[in-house]
Amino acid sequence: MNSKKHTLGSQPLKPDLQQRLDDYLQQMKQEADQFLGYPCSREFDYKPLYPFMDFPLNNVGDPFVTSGYHLNTHEYECEVIRFFTGLTRGEQDQTWGYVTNGGTEGNMYGIYLAREIYPEGLVYFSEATHYSVPKILRMVRARNIMIKSGKDGEMDYQDLAETIRIHRDVPPIIFANIGTTMTGAVDNLKKIIQIMRDLAIGHYYIHCDAALSGMILPFVNHPQPFDFSAGADSISISGHKMIGSPIPCGVALAKKKHVDRIARAVEYVGTFDTTVTGSRNAITPLFLWYAIHTKGHKGFRKIIRHCLEMAEYAVKLFNRLGIRAWRHPNSITVVFPICTEEVLKKWQIAQHQGLAHIITMPHVGTRQIDEMVLDILDAIESEEAGESNNEVDYETTEHHYRKSFRNRHGNNRNLGRG
Amino acid sequence: MNSKKHTLGSQPLKPDLQQRLDDYLQQMKQEADQFLGYPCSREFDYKPLYPFMDFPLNNVGDPFVTSGYHLNTHEYECEVIRFFTGLTRGEQDQTWGYVTNGGTEGNMYGIYLAREIYPEGLVYFSEATHYSVPKILRMVRARNIMIKSGKDGEMDYQDLAETIRIHRDVPPIIFANIGTTMTGAVDNLKKIIQIMRDLAIGHYYIHCDAALSGMILPFVNHPQPFDFSAGADSISISGHKMIGSPIPCGVALAKKKHVDRIARAVEYVGTFDTTVTGSRNAITPLFLWYAIHTKGHKGFRKIIRHCLEMAEYAVKLFNRLGIRAWRHPNSITVVFPICTEEVLKKWQIAQHQGLAHIITMPHVGTRQIDEMVLDILDAIESEEAGESNNEVDYETTEHHYRKSFRNRHGNNRNLGRG
Repeated sequence: MNSKKHTLGSQPLKPDLQQRLDDYLQQMKQEADQFLGYPCSREFDYKPLYPFMDFPLNNVGDPFVTSGYHLNTHEYECEVIRFFTGLTRGEQDQTWGYVTNGGTEGNMYGIYLAREIYPEGLVYFSEATHYSVPKILRMVRARNIMIKSGKDGEMDYQDLAETIRIHRDVPPIIFANIGTTMTGAVDNLKKIIQIMRDLAIGHYYIHCDAALSGMILPFVNHPQPFDFSAGADSISISGHKMIGSPIPCGVALAKKKHVDRIARAVEYVGTFDTTVTGSRNAITPLFLWYAIHTKGHKGFRKIIRHCLEMAEYAVKLFNRLGIRAWRHPNSITVVFPICTEEVLKKWQIAQHQGLAHIITMPHVGTRQIDEMVLDILDAIESEEAGESNNEVDYETTEHHYRKSFRNRHGNNRNLGRG
Repeated sequence: MNSKKHTLGSQPLKPDLQQRLDDYLQQMKQEADQFLGYPCSREFDYKPLYPFMDFPLNNVGDPFVTSGYHLNTHEYECEVIRFFTGLTRGEQDQTWGYVTNGGTEGNMYGIYLAREIYPEGLVYFSEATHYSVPKILRMVRARNIMIKSGKDGEMDYQDLAETIRIHRDVPPIIFANIGTTMTGAVDNLKKIIQIMRDLAIGHYYIHCDAALSGMILPFVNHPQPFDFSAGADSISISGHKMIGSPIPCGVALAKKKHVDRIARAVEYVGTFDTTVTGSRNAITPLFLWYAIHTKGHKGFRKIIRHCLEMAEYAVKLFNRLGIRAWRHPNSITVVFPICTEEVLKKWQIAQHQGLAHIITMPHVGTRQIDEMVLDILDAIESEEAGESNNEVDYETTEHHYRKSFRNRHGNNRNLGRG
């Protein structure tokens, strides 16, 4: 009997299935070139790490505790957490964290911690909050109230203050958006904390969902406050968004004193299990570690600058062409009125209540922005032509600019396609 | 300005860090050869799929609903779910599922579903249940009672019946272990359902944690009942265990009628979000799809036969050498009394309440079993020698067998190491 049977039970993929996979890969390549609507970078290359994928790696349990499962990357994960602790200005010895499967798990972790600390606490979150949050709140049975938000997506602090005022008998748990999904709005921690002071509330908890902006704000000159030094108790930041990864991932960070409350000794894996999942991905911590070391603070600063420049480029271009587009300070989410289904689908653009957005991630350059804007112009003008009874004034500045923009792009418009 | 900047902000890894990674990879190779204690196969090869990892893939939302995020592998995920639905004898059009980040998420999903259907329901689980389950129950605030289990790890049905009897005012939610972590014990669904009948309980829910055995029982001749045809409402099966994967994964399966209850339309991603996480790994569904097609029912049957043979080989070897080892029917978990810390650590063996186990996954052959057993013999005999005042009878059959086993292996014992 062979002790090693590498091919046990395996045979090559059938040719028709192999063909199907090949075709799918081509399709992904094409789609990736028209990928403007989601906050996920496609600028990454982790090939040097693929040899690790020969092994059944598993970061079971707390990354900071030695595991009985030796095929792990805990030490790399810890370094990733320390990097993010630095970015979010937490104390290294008073901050705990782990690499999650994405933003949702980080938010679930923060809410779970808060609810353990304040079982009767009320979670407040704005109506611009990502749809996964009410889902989590329902899942963990945390009492909650949705707060109004302004049209720009920022929390309505007056509504927050008034709502907390009538529930002063239970500790508030604030779910703050550090960059909402649709408009990139950042809830103002200073104002939120001021509300607590004004109401003489001593016990409260602040969780920050900094999925995208958690990797932007540490690299700009005038960031909105969002981190531990600004009063956060826990923070969730995505890894597959700004850093980029073929697999969704992120970090959950929290003040260590909160985590210690829920730590449970478990004999089975010889570790303290304070994470949400048991078995955990050990490849994505390695990806993040690699990105951190090949890019570094300087590299990330450069990348963020590029993204912000592209966002500003898009806003200006839209506006010159007579399309109302805008963005929040330090945000790479460019908001504009929804256009045709066809354009939205082609560029993978999400819409919500009459608004659409593109997000100028590291892989987005002027070429894709120009192409998408031309598609929108086509759609607008064919609509205008349809409605037209000569009321449209073609002599305005914006129509002049549209014409010259078209002329500039007319000849090579389809060059970058396919 | 370049529209494409592949190297934006990146530089090569520093030589000392590259060296560290190289060393770590070597260490993983070595550890992987002494990997007997965890239920994770290392017999997989997904290299042909790595080109897909160039893209920010994401299976956000329900795999069975078209997503606005085009860089997904939903169609492959659906096929994986259909395969598992077949294995677990669910009706294809009445069963829903998705690929999870591992067994814990699948269990969380089942418990969450059950709690949504019976908000006041009481969850019953045996004391042999994995430590992550009480953690989940606390997280989702599900009322629960731990039921006694026998020394072999199977649920104590008398305790279950008596406990349910005094809580007949609320629907029971049974968390059944289809293979406990420590001993591979399978809770008996027939007996559990009989208890419901005896107590005239019409409304109940059964979730099956079939992490490992869910990929064993469908391929043996006389399986214990565990699937939809045996009364399960939801089932969690791991993908990184028997099938094998460098990234933890699994499937959550449930009766469609239960899932429809919690489905919520969400405009944002243009999909119905019935999963636990939002952004989801799209690579592992592809891995599972590939394994299913390169192995197939025939291949899996062959693999399972090998694993069961190795388990039987290990039990017999242990017993001949005078070490009490045993296993449950159809189980590849070989249980034996704990030995020294050194041996446990070397072979990455978990221990719990005086018991240790090895799990004869597809990569485990006689060579590793023999080597580990020799290490245990060394430990036992050096202990016996320490305690010895000539009370040990070296003329027993087992001591004869020990001697001949040692002679057989004495010369090439270290050949396979390092």
